[in-house]
Amino acid sequence: MEKRLIYLEDLVVGSVFESAIHPVDAEKIKEFARQFDPQPFHVDEDAAVGTFFGGLAASGWHTAAITMKLLVESLPLSGGVIGAGSDISWPQPTRPGDILRVVSTIMDVTPSRSKPDRGIVKVQSDTLNQDGGLCQRSVARLVVFRRDRQTTQVFLSGNAS
Amino acid sequence: MEKRLIYLEDLVVGSVFESAIHPVDAEKIKEFARQFDPQPFHVDEDAAVGTFFGGLAASGWHTAAITMKLLVESLPLSGGVIGAGSDISWPQPTRPGDILRVVSTIMDVTPSRSKPDRGIVKVQSDTLNQDGGLCQRSVARLVVFRRDRQTTQVFLSGNAS
Repeated sequence: MEKRLIYLEDLVVGSVFESAIHPVDAEKIKEFARQFDPQPFHVDEDAAVGTFFGGLAASGWHTAAITMKLLVESLPLSGGVIGAGSDISWPQPTRPGDILRVVSTIMDVTPSRSKPDRGIVKVQSDTLNQDGGLCQRSVARLVVFRRDRQTTQVFLSGNAS
Repeated sequence: MEKRLIYLEDLVVGSVFESAIHPVDAEKIKEFARQFDPQPFHVDEDAAVGTFFGGLAASGWHTAAITMKLLVESLPLSGGVIGAGSDISWPQPTRPGDILRVVSTIMDVTPSRSKPDRGIVKVQSDTLNQDGGLCQRSVARLVVFRRDRQTTQVFLSGNAS
């Protein structure tokens, strides 16, 4: 199934995009953490008990990486999902057995002043587990391209100047 | 070599922590991206040429994960490096052949009002390549524990009330 690609003109504040689900298990949590975040609470069930997390928890960066995978699949932007930056928080950790999904809401669409072929889109992506628990909230600034630069310029100059 | 652990009392605004270096190659870039960010500019040198990035570039989340690895090694906090959140931007992408390092600066130290055994520390971590190019800037909010809760409480009550 081919997805219809999305351009800047298609994005409306308030639109919501829902991802597929992604299960997370202890092995995956430890595998990611051994490579990128080798701390006791991310790599060892027993050692994790006496820590801040009280048990094995995924690295926040693992949650972020899974979120990106789900976002790329659920928000098919024409030029790709290209982030300039992101403000990210982890209200609760991802745990072994969690089944994650991502709900993304368009918060803001700002045409670029200097580059008329694109704009910056603010997208809030909530990463939820199977109980609706919020494992991550990110507000990303994405570079999104226009479908038709010429048409849009004419349209804008006719309305805004 | 055992590292001396760092507690909230040890952290001073302006202190700088420098990490080791971490080389990044095309295979690692593609391996991470196939799993978490499978877009043409992250997984295929040829397909990447005609994109926004003009050639193979690491996923920003790959740069973030490597940054975490280097931060965990270079900022040995007593309870671990535990992030409540992070504001992150990628001024330029990490490229194949880049050698990354992280320079972290303590920006703010705020004792918790509700939990006297800890505080929130703001740390700016710049991820630089071998040419000094800024591949990532993050400002993280970390949970950091006190060495001696009793002593500190006495000290604070004697000075602040």
